[in-house]
Amino acid sequence: MAQKPSIPKGTRDFGPEQMSKRNYIFDTIRSVFKLYGFQPIETPAMENLSTLMGKYGEEGDKLLFKVLNSGDFTKKISDEDFAARHIPKLTNKLSEKGLRYDLTVPFARYVVQHRNEITFPFKRFQIQPVWRADRPQRGRYREFFQCDVDVVGSDSLMNEVELIQIVDEVYRRLGIRTVIKLNNRKVLAGIAETIGAADRMIDITVAIDKLDKIGLENVNKELIEKGISSESVDKLQPILKLSGSNQEKLSQIEEVISNSEVGMKGVEELREIFDYLTMFDLDVEVELDLTLARGLNYYTGAIFEVKAKDAVMGSITGGGRYDDLTGIFGLKDVSGVGISFGADRIYDVLESLDLFPKDSLTSTKVLFVNFGKTEEKYCLPILASLRKEGVACEIFGNSAKMKKQMSYANSKNIPFVALVGESEMAEGKVTLKDMESGEQKLVNVEELIAALK
Amino acid sequence: MAQKPSIPKGTRDFGPEQMSKRNYIFDTIRSVFKLYGFQPIETPAMENLSTLMGKYGEEGDKLLFKVLNSGDFTKKISDEDFAARHIPKLTNKLSEKGLRYDLTVPFARYVVQHRNEITFPFKRFQIQPVWRADRPQRGRYREFFQCDVDVVGSDSLMNEVELIQIVDEVYRRLGIRTVIKLNNRKVLAGIAETIGAADRMIDITVAIDKLDKIGLENVNKELIEKGISSESVDKLQPILKLSGSNQEKLSQIEEVISNSEVGMKGVEELREIFDYLTMFDLDVEVELDLTLARGLNYYTGAIFEVKAKDAVMGSITGGGRYDDLTGIFGLKDVSGVGISFGADRIYDVLESLDLFPKDSLTSTKVLFVNFGKTEEKYCLPILASLRKEGVACEIFGNSAKMKKQMSYANSKNIPFVALVGESEMAEGKVTLKDMESGEQKLVNVEELIAALK
Repeated sequence: MAQKPSIPKGTRDFGPEQMSKRNYIFDTIRSVFKLYGFQPIETPAMENLSTLMGKYGEEGDKLLFKVLNSGDFTKKISDEDFAARHIPKLTNKLSEKGLRYDLTVPFARYVVQHRNEITFPFKRFQIQPVWRADRPQRGRYREFFQCDVDVVGSDSLMNEVELIQIVDEVYRRLGIRTVIKLNNRKVLAGIAETIGAADRMIDITVAIDKLDKIGLENVNKELIEKGISSESVDKLQPILKLSGSNQEKLSQIEEVISNSEVGMKGVEELREIFDYLTMFDLDVEVELDLTLARGLNYYTGAIFEVKAKDAVMGSITGGGRYDDLTGIFGLKDVSGVGISFGADRIYDVLESLDLFPKDSLTSTKVLFVNFGKTEEKYCLPILASLRKEGVACEIFGNSAKMKKQMSYANSKNIPFVALVGESEMAEGKVTLKDMESGEQKLVNVEELIAALK
Repeated sequence: MAQKPSIPKGTRDFGPEQMSKRNYIFDTIRSVFKLYGFQPIETPAMENLSTLMGKYGEEGDKLLFKVLNSGDFTKKISDEDFAARHIPKLTNKLSEKGLRYDLTVPFARYVVQHRNEITFPFKRFQIQPVWRADRPQRGRYREFFQCDVDVVGSDSLMNEVELIQIVDEVYRRLGIRTVIKLNNRKVLAGIAETIGAADRMIDITVAIDKLDKIGLENVNKELIEKGISSESVDKLQPILKLSGSNQEKLSQIEEVISNSEVGMKGVEELREIFDYLTMFDLDVEVELDLTLARGLNYYTGAIFEVKAKDAVMGSITGGGRYDDLTGIFGLKDVSGVGISFGADRIYDVLESLDLFPKDSLTSTKVLFVNFGKTEEKYCLPILASLRKEGVACEIFGNSAKMKKQMSYANSKNIPFVALVGESEMAEGKVTLKDMESGEQKLVNVEELIAALK
């Protein structure tokens, strides 16, 4: 019966220390979301495959984890069907449900399904795991958490501004210095229009998006390979090389795309956002980056990406405005904007910069060493009093060797131990030992509570 | 492309109101767990099927949700294999992973897998969803949350006592009056031994367990049907009818099973637990119930079940001691004890008794009504100041009709609105309106903060 236990590749167990650190991140993010009036929702781990399929491209369809139908899952499949081994067709007959691949599509499904209960604008956040059958590698998991925050049913640009404020506040609290890169899909559309390739906007943005990674030359090569005329690629060059302050970049781009109506709308939106931002005292640097494109096709307005200044790490937060996310489920004209915080990357940044606060690791405040049944009886009501005052405490389960009890305290990062022997009992007191300094003092119960609270 | 969106049967979306209520329960439970030095862990949603299969009986194996292998999942299956339609065999070849069915088996797997990192006794709690392909019905879902708390690596009965204290404190905080039914598997073994059916303890406990539901007569019938001699069943009768105080019951049972060593050990354990309990000021009533058996076979010592006194509802918490849970994964002799809180049932009890605190539903404290761009500019820095003081606040995204903005505030249970027009701006003030009383007052920013903080 015995077997060497393990977990599926790409998945993780989180022990107490990792949990404390992860909860520190989630709690920080969650409390900032709440300050801005966002409310939590949760959706099921399993969605109908009809909800998920076709929403993430062909590759995404393959990366969805599918759940085998219960009971006789072969009943819809003839022997001939099986022999043909047409995987998508067989999948369709073997499975009706899949695991959540992101939080965006379930959210769109939620909004449409519950449209009559929701008061718009709907400000929701959602912190849940998602699953992808990606090849596992360093920093890429098959189960990972997303922290999404979105407003739907409002096209006010104040929402974009609030999301920037949220980014600022979250990273201020976490102690990570960041820069937000900001762009607008309408400006990208304007650029495509201006260089005479309006219908190729997606190809152009996908190529531009890689500028950071593959460099200007390769971006140009990719554009040509995708069939963008070399004339258009030439026209694009000044835009890819824009520099100066945000205002300067806006003025330059405005000149270039002044004939594109959609492009000028994008410039106007960007100006309005920058105007709003002057009203707040932000730590985060907001930088207009006209080469920021983001891969997802549903974005239609502002797009964001956040990077940590002091760590080598991809984007730790990103998002944008979408005008028709719920359209796939039959609800038109619901504009929304949202961002997603990457918990795993934030964890790695905090770890690499040693920014986790030490007290986020403390759980139990004091361990009572157990010297035997008599001492135990003396201690138990004291533990009850401490807990009544909100002090987390423990007593070792039996009178094990001192060394064992102390090493238990150490392994749990317990900052104090309480020692009770005959003399303490005679005096009605407790010896409290500070595990870090080694300092000891004899205290009564009120003093003990005061010292630990 | 449009489709009527829905979710798989037996699963649920949780909207903001349900989330607040559920989080109120989880936060309460979690903070009590922490007071006693328990630390959180989380395990992956997917486990290897080799970890899960065979752990929940034949029926359980069927109720596991299995995840279809990625890529060409047919490759291990010949056409002949398929034509034979042997479901368990095909399942084995189509799927390697399954969704977590409970938190106990993953926890046992975790302890064994991480035994070298863990300092024992290991006090952990775990609050995560589990999935079962049960037929959905009222109160039974295919995705539901379990809240488990366990100590492993300690056979001290203080652990049992702490779990009872935890039950007491959780339900005290939630305002639910409860009774804990307590029994001990060793006493049940002693009874089986005494009535001359030692090898039939499982059958006897399974039958006894139904006493509440099907009545004495049917329990006796079931015992006979299972082949327990009528002589043994006769001997069992006084035990099934025991009455009096806990101490009286203990004395009576002690007399009956005095020749059974294991039985007397069980009585001794129960006495020790009741002794400990006299030291604490508990709200919960702890009742010795010798007919409490609990279905799970891995229990070997104390067993618990908690019922709400004022609601018609099955057990809302339950658990017990197990001496060899990790044995299935190759780690012997690790005794543990744990209980599980049933979040869905607790939710229903709180709802039916109207015990959810009203302020658990409040998220945003104040909504600033938006009267236009000028007013907006005046308000935004005030919102920033409020948030800096930890006050959750919002401003409506545009100057929509007053009625629309007020109905937004109502639907989100926002207790205050702030009104800013020309006169407020001229005076540097804000009109704060209490949504419940309708009362309004003109305040400056400091007064506003003070009123809302």
